[in-house]
Amino acid sequence: MLDAVFDSLRDAQKKLALESGENKNKALLAVAEAIRKDETKILLANTYDIEKARQTDTKESLVERLRINEDRVHEMIQGVKNIANLPDPVGKVRAGWTLPNGLFIESLTVPLGVVAIIYESRPNVTVDAFALAYKAGCSILLRGSSAALNSNQALVTAIKYGLKAGGGIEDAVELASSGEHSEVNEILQARGKIDVVLPRGGHNLIQYVLANARVPVIETGEGNCHIYIEPSADPQNAAEIICNAKTQRPGACNAVETILVHRDALSALAPLLTEKLAGKVKLRCDPQAKAAFGETSAAAQALLLIEDATEEDWETEYLDFILAVKTVDTIDQAIDHIKRYGTGHSECILTDDLKSSERFLREVDAACVYVNASTRFTDGGAFGFGAELGISTQKLHVRGPMGLEALCSIKYLIRGSGQIRP
Amino acid sequence: MLDAVFDSLRDAQKKLALESGENKNKALLAVAEAIRKDETKILLANTYDIEKARQTDTKESLVERLRINEDRVHEMIQGVKNIANLPDPVGKVRAGWTLPNGLFIESLTVPLGVVAIIYESRPNVTVDAFALAYKAGCSILLRGSSAALNSNQALVTAIKYGLKAGGGIEDAVELASSGEHSEVNEILQARGKIDVVLPRGGHNLIQYVLANARVPVIETGEGNCHIYIEPSADPQNAAEIICNAKTQRPGACNAVETILVHRDALSALAPLLTEKLAGKVKLRCDPQAKAAFGETSAAAQALLLIEDATEEDWETEYLDFILAVKTVDTIDQAIDHIKRYGTGHSECILTDDLKSSERFLREVDAACVYVNASTRFTDGGAFGFGAELGISTQKLHVRGPMGLEALCSIKYLIRGSGQIRP
Repeated sequence: MLDAVFDSLRDAQKKLALESGENKNKALLAVAEAIRKDETKILLANTYDIEKARQTDTKESLVERLRINEDRVHEMIQGVKNIANLPDPVGKVRAGWTLPNGLFIESLTVPLGVVAIIYESRPNVTVDAFALAYKAGCSILLRGSSAALNSNQALVTAIKYGLKAGGGIEDAVELASSGEHSEVNEILQARGKIDVVLPRGGHNLIQYVLANARVPVIETGEGNCHIYIEPSADPQNAAEIICNAKTQRPGACNAVETILVHRDALSALAPLLTEKLAGKVKLRCDPQAKAAFGETSAAAQALLLIEDATEEDWETEYLDFILAVKTVDTIDQAIDHIKRYGTGHSECILTDDLKSSERFLREVDAACVYVNASTRFTDGGAFGFGAELGISTQKLHVRGPMGLEALCSIKYLIRGSGQIRP
Repeated sequence: MLDAVFDSLRDAQKKLALESGENKNKALLAVAEAIRKDETKILLANTYDIEKARQTDTKESLVERLRINEDRVHEMIQGVKNIANLPDPVGKVRAGWTLPNGLFIESLTVPLGVVAIIYESRPNVTVDAFALAYKAGCSILLRGSSAALNSNQALVTAIKYGLKAGGGIEDAVELASSGEHSEVNEILQARGKIDVVLPRGGHNLIQYVLANARVPVIETGEGNCHIYIEPSADPQNAAEIICNAKTQRPGACNAVETILVHRDALSALAPLLTEKLAGKVKLRCDPQAKAAFGETSAAAQALLLIEDATEEDWETEYLDFILAVKTVDTIDQAIDHIKRYGTGHSECILTDDLKSSERFLREVDAACVYVNASTRFTDGGAFGFGAELGISTQKLHVRGPMGLEALCSIKYLIRGSGQIRP
């Protein structure tokens, strides 16, 4: 039963909401130091998790997600320091105005409250999520996967030790560690106790949370991302961007899944792209694109596996070394395709044409709309947010990479001199 | 089945999102004109609703909520005009920065999407909600109560006629009018089709929506509001503010329910407040307050009904001519009481002490925190938002009166020159 934990998080949050930025930063830096000191313990705990995962025949890619090494620990430490160095998101005046009757109204940022995150594998999320929450004056309940339990316990022990050493509020972070699935349900039902739940993980986790939550949820995740290539785009640069967006980390939600190639861009792009992707990426092409790729050098073709695209390909987030290729005749067709199949995550146009770039930015409805850059930049760290809690694909409250601002609400302060309502 | 309606609202919203502010305003002014032209029809339709309600023995206060007269219609028309005159909330740059690699990121306001509102009685909500949504580029599904069906149909007919006449997008507004309860459930399950549902009405409606929605909900409503009175406050002005906050519209969620009187403010306030409230308001007092009110003039006492307060009184949102009175010894006690019993709606301090006012503003966690003014100002119209969709008592996305900003999301525009992620 998490009731006592909810109450303790709520009490801690009320204190944390009133902490000065200076005190919060001091506590965060002490947490960074505590993680550094506990590095050996953390790595040891992680080896237990890895061994356990291997013994239960976990897929090697999942085992890899679980792994922490020295570099990862240093990244976590640096992440906490980066967050400490960001400006305090709390107490910022967002707007202010005076009514005709003299009432002076201001809206001020305040912490969102008590946050819960339900996540899979990657133990670095434990540290990132805690640090962002603490900085924003929110207490946080961490519900990691049972596969990462030892690692998460070691990390939270270090975090709490650091908070104590740095004069922070230890009770502002708790790990839900029973490993029981009922714990997830208890969190999802905790209306009035938890202000928001963030699911971070695969499709099934997110759908489960959406279907069962009685507390507000921020939906994250699915990214069926597109890059549309116009004839005016430099083909060499286009090939580099597409290759980066597809292969730099294909399992990420901001990886490109379908490219929409203008028919007049196809012949210049195909050989350059073949060269970049050959031996790494399978293509699923419509007939016109297939023909263009078929005209590239025999050597390249030998390494590039081309299959026929079906309707399903336009709908699929592969999260793999597979890329769908569709030929379009106009920018309208590209925008329509994105409207129909896009998940509102990250969409990109490669062009040298001003009208096209402005139209694309204006008409495509997605969290992040790019001109001439890789979609892989959709990321809290890359955006300069210090870290991220995930990438919101909903429009309510927060959209795109979630950093400190996503953990804030507002309150109105109204200063009067005796006004009553007529 | 609302599926076709959902699709039509989605298509209309995509068009509306790209409309210029000028075109939206032109359409809204044409709607104002159409309502003016249809005034007789609207009033006639309303008389049907009123008669039907009387025949089914509806409580007179509910019948009153249903009633539209000429003044109300003129208020609706003026409301639409006011909203047309507000600045366009869409397309505002909220932030912008350049990354070290040269990527230029901007966050821009965009419409939230397709909105549904489920509301009771008051037909003016029909017009307010439509006008705010249209201005913000959102299409809206209106699900009013069956008691107001004729009025709402007449209003939506006028709205659609106006949109047509003004070159607007008629399909951006629909009334769900089957009267079946299953319709509500269909709306609540429409994940991916409806971006947010706003329940506006009594406790039961809101709880039902919260318990059953699969789409994001903005919680509105309950206001157990407090006024804390310090000895330094002018007692005459304090009595006026309390009387206004209690009696100007006791059924509103921003009406005061409990006053927390500093023990040293009690003797000066009691006679003045007795005078103001006698014959109108029942008091539920703790022993110390009861004694103080007992020392006021016999004539006043004869008109003032004083009862003993119980624990339940501190928890109750009366929405009636009843006021709970509690004596406190310190500002800490007042803040603690609000922390425990407040619903985070509107809280007020009456004081002449700077330290107290700053502490209260900082430490009280509510949508609206007042110094020296009536809590009745918590209202979109009063705040200058043109109208309101309701008052949010949650912290996610929007808090306090919901105007145009509550109907916006953001998107990130990222302009590059060939950047790839290292």
